Amino acid sequence: MVFKIQSTDKKSKARTGTIQTDHGEIKTPIFMPVGTAGTVKSIHQRELESDINAQIILGNTYHLYLRPGLDVLSQAGGIHKFNGWNRPILTDSGGYQVYSLSGTRKIKEEGVTFASHIDGSKHTFTPENVMDIQRTIGADIIMAFDECTPYPCEYKYARKSMEMTHRWLKRCCDRFDSTEPKYGYGQTLFPIVQGSCFKDLRLASAEKIASFNREGNAIGGLSVGEPAEIMYEMTEIVCSVLPWEKPRYLMGVGTPANLLESIALGIDMFDCVMPTRNARNGMIFTTEGIINIKNEKWKSDFSEIDPGLPSFLKNYYSKAYLRHLVASKEILGAQIATLQNLTFYLWLMNEARTKIEEGTFSEWKDLTVKKIMTRL
Amino acid sequence: MVFKIQSTDKKSKARTGTIQTDHGEIKTPIFMPVGTAGTVKSIHQRELESDINAQIILGNTYHLYLRPGLDVLSQAGGIHKFNGWNRPILTDSGGYQVYSLSGTRKIKEEGVTFASHIDGSKHTFTPENVMDIQRTIGADIIMAFDECTPYPCEYKYARKSMEMTHRWLKRCCDRFDSTEPKYGYGQTLFPIVQGSCFKDLRLASAEKIASFNREGNAIGGLSVGEPAEIMYEMTEIVCSVLPWEKPRYLMGVGTPANLLESIALGIDMFDCVMPTRNARNGMIFTTEGIINIKNEKWKSDFSEIDPGLPSFLKNYYSKAYLRHLVASKEILGAQIATLQNLTFYLWLMNEARTKIEEGTFSEWKDLTVKKIMTRL
Ligand SMILES: [Zn+2]
Ligand SMILES: [Zn+2]
Repeated sequence: MVFKIQSTDKKSKARTGTIQTDHGEIKTPIFMPVGTAGTVKSIHQRELESDINAQIILGNTYHLYLRPGLDVLSQAGGIHKFNGWNRPILTDSGGYQVYSLSGTRKIKEEGVTFASHIDGSKHTFTPENVMDIQRTIGADIIMAFDECTPYPCEYKYARKSMEMTHRWLKRCCDRFDSTEPKYGYGQTLFPIVQGSCFKDLRLASAEKIASFNREGNAIGGLSVGEPAEIMYEMTEIVCSVLPWEKPRYLMGVGTPANLLESIALGIDMFDCVMPTRNARNGMIFTTEGIINIKNEKWKSDFSEIDPGLPSFLKNYYSKAYLRHLVASKEILGAQIATLQNLTFYLWLMNEARTKIEEGTFSEWKDLTVKKIMTRL
Repeated sequence: MVFKIQSTDKKSKARTGTIQTDHGEIKTPIFMPVGTAGTVKSIHQRELESDINAQIILGNTYHLYLRPGLDVLSQAGGIHKFNGWNRPILTDSGGYQVYSLSGTRKIKEEGVTFASHIDGSKHTFTPENVMDIQRTIGADIIMAFDECTPYPCEYKYARKSMEMTHRWLKRCCDRFDSTEPKYGYGQTLFPIVQGSCFKDLRLASAEKIASFNREGNAIGGLSVGEPAEIMYEMTEIVCSVLPWEKPRYLMGVGTPANLLESIALGIDMFDCVMPTRNARNGMIFTTEGIINIKNEKWKSDFSEIDPGLPSFLKNYYSKAYLRHLVASKEILGAQIATLQNLTFYLWLMNEARTKIEEGTFSEWKDLTVKKIMTRL
């Protein structure tokens, strides 16, 4: 993996760049659609490529490990061959899903034991086997096994958890560096900064994580319920420590406004279920603002869903039709809403890159955040 | 509407033709994908047009009447403007759905009262208002309001029901002929032959229906549980009476084999939920036979879903991936399976037309039926 910074904004920490992987180039800042089980829900791979213009998608280690399972994935020759997505893929470490299985999971120094949500079978994730699992899944970028603390979190717990995450990172790196990719293309490991919402812990974690000198770095444990101001504050502190010349990935973020504000703080990569999950509940992001398509007011609105976005959707569908589909729980409603939201998110990242390159990012951001977060 | 027969098979009653409507031409024999609520479930309009090559789709009057409702449809300027499908649309009369609401519906000479499955509200369908409703929905081909008898059915009930269907048809025609299309394009009314599985009733009904001298004729009350042989027998009897020079529509049929056998009896149009509904349960129709994709045997089969069918699916997806999606209840599983099944059904109709034109239909049909109905 090679990251090159191409241009920087004068009034903020925003920058554009490229990440070169063996599955092609990613232009940053970038949003990664979430493809939990090897599929971005309700979206064809052809649409991801040609309509949404996704450059990289995310897969969830926990889900892929349980289903289809490592035997199928390795027989296929890795996730790209399995799901037909030939551009870059990033996998999370599975930790986040496992922790949310509260009641069934136990966190120890060695690792985490948990019960499958599918059949109740018992499994253990350790820093070592999560590296092996992600090697076998075959993502281009794989994530360290960490503990993501909830919000709010006691200082004492946050510190202990962060320290374990650091010890786990050492074990992740040792295992990763002593193993080879399985399918002939390169893989790279991103460590994750933790430290909850405590400045000193975030600083300490960022310094520790930076010292591992990996090819890219991630910020975890944010966007877990804390106020946006705290999220930005922590992001800013961490970005001041993480090396400038390496990509920075803010995990699980966020709204369109969160993305633009975090780009201004020096973030290059994002993922979030919001544009996909909320689409299925009728929340539509557009260049003109946010629509709750279930609202009665759209019932006879035959205008196109988003006049500002170039998309094949405008050749076929109106707001009223989308409202009818979502109200009727028709699958096509989820398909249209998800396609709109992801097309919008990727369009927004492309706009941000252009504005950074043109030197007009900061002014554009302030105007755009107001517009796109308006409730229509 | 203008129907022209283009070629006829020498060894069977099969024929090819064209139906000209104000929304374009339909080449027959044709299969009409079912788009219950104005959407063919899990399929984008773009895919229907460009990948599946559907020429006409079906909508359900019962569903469209309840949701989005006639006010929205008339404000939109009809169903085509509402759902973005600019090719021909046929609507059923709503009868079939209403009868299946057993317990809540009452059939009388005047019409049928029923309770909405959505909110329990009470409604009445009569021959007259069903014509008005279909005028307002705006389909190109609309269906007479009939009673579809179940199988098995007592002779006495079948005869009484058929006679009421005939009286209702008179009322349908009177209303239809004294009203105008609402959106500037033509609409045509197809009457429906009933008579359950009784030869004399089918003959009598076909003669009565033919005497109304509409632009096309339909055969209802088949594919409701009777053996295929009886369905073919009834179809053959009815086709011997219905005018040769008008399109014949066999409602609710059927499997790929049913389609080819019925084409040989002189049928021009079909609809059925099988390729769409069964797709969502993992039943995949291919040029090589029928696949139950949930079966363990496909778990590590990385071959393409249907090597014999030109489709974008082959650029992305394998049987193993489709199995994973269907097993995981992922929406994309329904999308791929439905797209495959409809592409196959429309491909099969295209093949049949070509073989009829080439004069090789009968031999091809016998070989093809065996192949495509094989359980893989
Ligand atoms: Zn998120
Ligand atoms: Zn059917």
